[in-house]
Amino acid sequence: MTDYVAPPPLDPKIRINETYMSKIDQSLLDQFAEIVGPANALVSEADKASYLEEARKIYQSRSPLVLRPGSVKEVSEILKLASITGTPIVPQAGNTGHVGGAVANPDQDQIILSVSRLNQIRDVDPFGNTMIVEAGVILESVHRAATDHDRLFPLSIGAKGTCQIGGNLSTNAGGTAVLAYGNMRDLVLGLEVVLPNGDIWDGLRRLKKDNTGYNLRNLFVGAEGTLGIVTAAVLKLFPIPKGKEVAFIGLRSPEDALELLTRAGAAAGNDLTGFELMPRVCIDVVARHIPGQRDPMESQHPWYVLMEISSSRAQEDARDAMETVLGEAFEDDLVQDAVIAQSAQQQDQFWALRESISPAQKPEGGSIKHDVSVPVSAVPDFLRRAGEIIETITPGGRVLGFGHMGDGNIHYNISEPEGGDPGFLDKRLETNAAIHALVRELDGSISAEHGIGLMKRDEMARTKQPVEMEMMRAIKRSFDPNNIMNPGKVVEI
Amino acid sequence: MTDYVAPPPLDPKIRINETYMSKIDQSLLDQFAEIVGPANALVSEADKASYLEEARKIYQSRSPLVLRPGSVKEVSEILKLASITGTPIVPQAGNTGHVGGAVANPDQDQIILSVSRLNQIRDVDPFGNTMIVEAGVILESVHRAATDHDRLFPLSIGAKGTCQIGGNLSTNAGGTAVLAYGNMRDLVLGLEVVLPNGDIWDGLRRLKKDNTGYNLRNLFVGAEGTLGIVTAAVLKLFPIPKGKEVAFIGLRSPEDALELLTRAGAAAGNDLTGFELMPRVCIDVVARHIPGQRDPMESQHPWYVLMEISSSRAQEDARDAMETVLGEAFEDDLVQDAVIAQSAQQQDQFWALRESISPAQKPEGGSIKHDVSVPVSAVPDFLRRAGEIIETITPGGRVLGFGHMGDGNIHYNISEPEGGDPGFLDKRLETNAAIHALVRELDGSISAEHGIGLMKRDEMARTKQPVEMEMMRAIKRSFDPNNIMNPGKVVEI
Repeated sequence: MTDYVAPPPLDPKIRINETYMSKIDQSLLDQFAEIVGPANALVSEADKASYLEEARKIYQSRSPLVLRPGSVKEVSEILKLASITGTPIVPQAGNTGHVGGAVANPDQDQIILSVSRLNQIRDVDPFGNTMIVEAGVILESVHRAATDHDRLFPLSIGAKGTCQIGGNLSTNAGGTAVLAYGNMRDLVLGLEVVLPNGDIWDGLRRLKKDNTGYNLRNLFVGAEGTLGIVTAAVLKLFPIPKGKEVAFIGLRSPEDALELLTRAGAAAGNDLTGFELMPRVCIDVVARHIPGQRDPMESQHPWYVLMEISSSRAQEDARDAMETVLGEAFEDDLVQDAVIAQSAQQQDQFWALRESISPAQKPEGGSIKHDVSVPVSAVPDFLRRAGEIIETITPGGRVLGFGHMGDGNIHYNISEPEGGDPGFLDKRLETNAAIHALVRELDGSISAEHGIGLMKRDEMARTKQPVEMEMMRAIKRSFDPNNIMNPGKVVEI
Repeated sequence: MTDYVAPPPLDPKIRINETYMSKIDQSLLDQFAEIVGPANALVSEADKASYLEEARKIYQSRSPLVLRPGSVKEVSEILKLASITGTPIVPQAGNTGHVGGAVANPDQDQIILSVSRLNQIRDVDPFGNTMIVEAGVILESVHRAATDHDRLFPLSIGAKGTCQIGGNLSTNAGGTAVLAYGNMRDLVLGLEVVLPNGDIWDGLRRLKKDNTGYNLRNLFVGAEGTLGIVTAAVLKLFPIPKGKEVAFIGLRSPEDALELLTRAGAAAGNDLTGFELMPRVCIDVVARHIPGQRDPMESQHPWYVLMEISSSRAQEDARDAMETVLGEAFEDDLVQDAVIAQSAQQQDQFWALRESISPAQKPEGGSIKHDVSVPVSAVPDFLRRAGEIIETITPGGRVLGFGHMGDGNIHYNISEPEGGDPGFLDKRLETNAAIHALVRELDGSISAEHGIGLMKRDEMARTKQPVEMEMMRAIKRSFDPNNIMNPGKVVEI
């Protein structure tokens, strides 16, 4: 398989475990294949290709076998066999992650287990506001099933059309609705999990309150498949808001945006359903590269906020709240300009602008990215000091530091200077190190929503308190003593 | 210490670990005392008395030494010494729990560690909506500190004047605000914990998003002091609602209450901040025993709901929402009568009625209690079938099954028949077993908010899936291999 030998990873710090190289015996591969049947045991390169792609093209992935079990029982049998034989298993859902959490090590035979055939919506209870879905259900299908029952499932991320619930759970996905509804961890009541030894834990509880022992659910959410395989979950549903207003707002500074956030929170409470911050350069690159998008305002401003206010009661309610917040902010000279979307279509247009920043950055050349969070009140300080770092390390680098200000989560992405700079990407490690050091100084997180995977494993181990790493290792050792579950990801034992 | 020998516990199923009896050497006790100084190492029975009281008088508690450390460092030194010497430590906060989680085993020397001197509010950040408090801060002090900064800390339970945050965290406290704001687990962003070996984990993160590794925080929340000692926490704050309406509503049945809950949720969304269900008999006993309380309505109804709707914007908003919901419910013959409180004082009166049910039950004679939850949509079914069970096992027993319907959490308490029944309490175990069996059949929880402690430890071990118990034991063994942290509570290893 010389055509699947890994190229050197982009980043010498980002490497997968190469301490040993092992090959899975063909007869053992056959035993695994037998569990799911030949049609769902993929061995040809063509069949395996989509499972071996990696979203950001940073990692090479190779596997002798991709298994597509069709039932929880089959998942259990696979893990039982893997556990007995010490065979490494890489769980995979929609394969849309950004940190290499679902790639198979090219230097060691690892079997990919795709949950995509576990794609049933088992139950919808609109009275209890719960839905039971299997791990392979696509996020957008969950949205539709909720809507069909006049309910909302709020989690929304860019990959919603292809990502699957199992991945959303394993990475504790975030996105734009976290401000009002929380991240995936906040949206799940119960789990069904196959443990590394093949045991099935039926924790599909639909309870809002259950104080019987340790909270196991939250261990599996965000564990990136290193403690077991989530096969189904009880999700929380919500009433669909009856009104929604979206405004695009020009401001002078992140400090003013923080003050606006505080006021909007006080005025709208949990009805403040979106608060996204972006600098001027984001508008420029979106207008330049994304067809149909343009600057929503006549005047130009250094910073912008996309603010969404919803109402459970009526459209006029949301409109009143939006107008009150903006009116007072204008009076106090806190905002410079604002456009309230005049139709559902224009609302979508505003959100599409925000969601186009990442794709619009691609044609601008090389980029250095960070997915960080700091305490909400520290966002202005972070942006100012991070800007100084960029000016020092990569002068002229264009800072597209945008994101979920209401959650303190900034996608701090740097594009190479206008006109290009061949040495720009060479500064990647130095830039990452400096930005992450600042984040740590501000008590922030170096991975706000994308997770650890391979990409941030070593940096996490190097920089977290040793006592915290030791607790994680202790849990990994307890749950997966043979280290067969997604080995090399998140934490090494 | 013959005066502290334990009486036989009320319930033969409820017993603490008696597998061995051990005594702590006086010189070791002196070493522990030295860490906190003589003023905070309590040895006289008078000084220790309040730490050895147990709220429900079910358990006897005895301890040779109560330590009151004044700093995290002292807590760390105590656990280091305990770990080396294998000395059992019982952590204690406000000592208001209901399941014997903070009692010291009378048959074995165990040292009580009270966190009550760790009572500083370290930081309030109204912009970031966070507060950092130590474990010994009383819940009501947290409320006041939040109010002083024009913010709300929503957790509210009956014991708020004496319970401490460390206990609220360790039991994942619930209460009346869970419907809109969640339980304690949902209200905390970060923790500071002293581990059983004395290591200090500074996990005081103020981040809304942080996907770096396993979620350790949620393991300690609800662990009832069996995995370490929480010494401080970052709590979430919220804007204070600007308007609030409280109504007392008479209905025909729990089915109608469920329909009203669904409608109110759709109409008010997260502004539905209270939905408490109670049967007629609750009104009777409160009116009979609680001075100043009376039936708020002219007419009598089989069931009542206390409904609270808030607004982040204005009083009129809350009033509009309440009137709309009730108006439509009247039109559709869903509610029979309703009184909207006409003043803040009357609102408090309505809530006081609800909160007086427990104390009003005391003078009614013996009672058999359950703190259970079921999926919200199963509440009517639960109440009907549980009623049949009571009629069979304890005919004439008066069912005071009331509580947080919006969370599916019913305090299913039975008072002995009018006029008394000397054999009533003898039916306790049989009643518990039958009600809990029904709860399990409905995929519910036998401890919705009070926890496990000693009281439900054996029943939990007997009835949970073995795989779930094994995961809990694995975690306990990993974190506390010497079994020094609150041994015998929650889970035995």
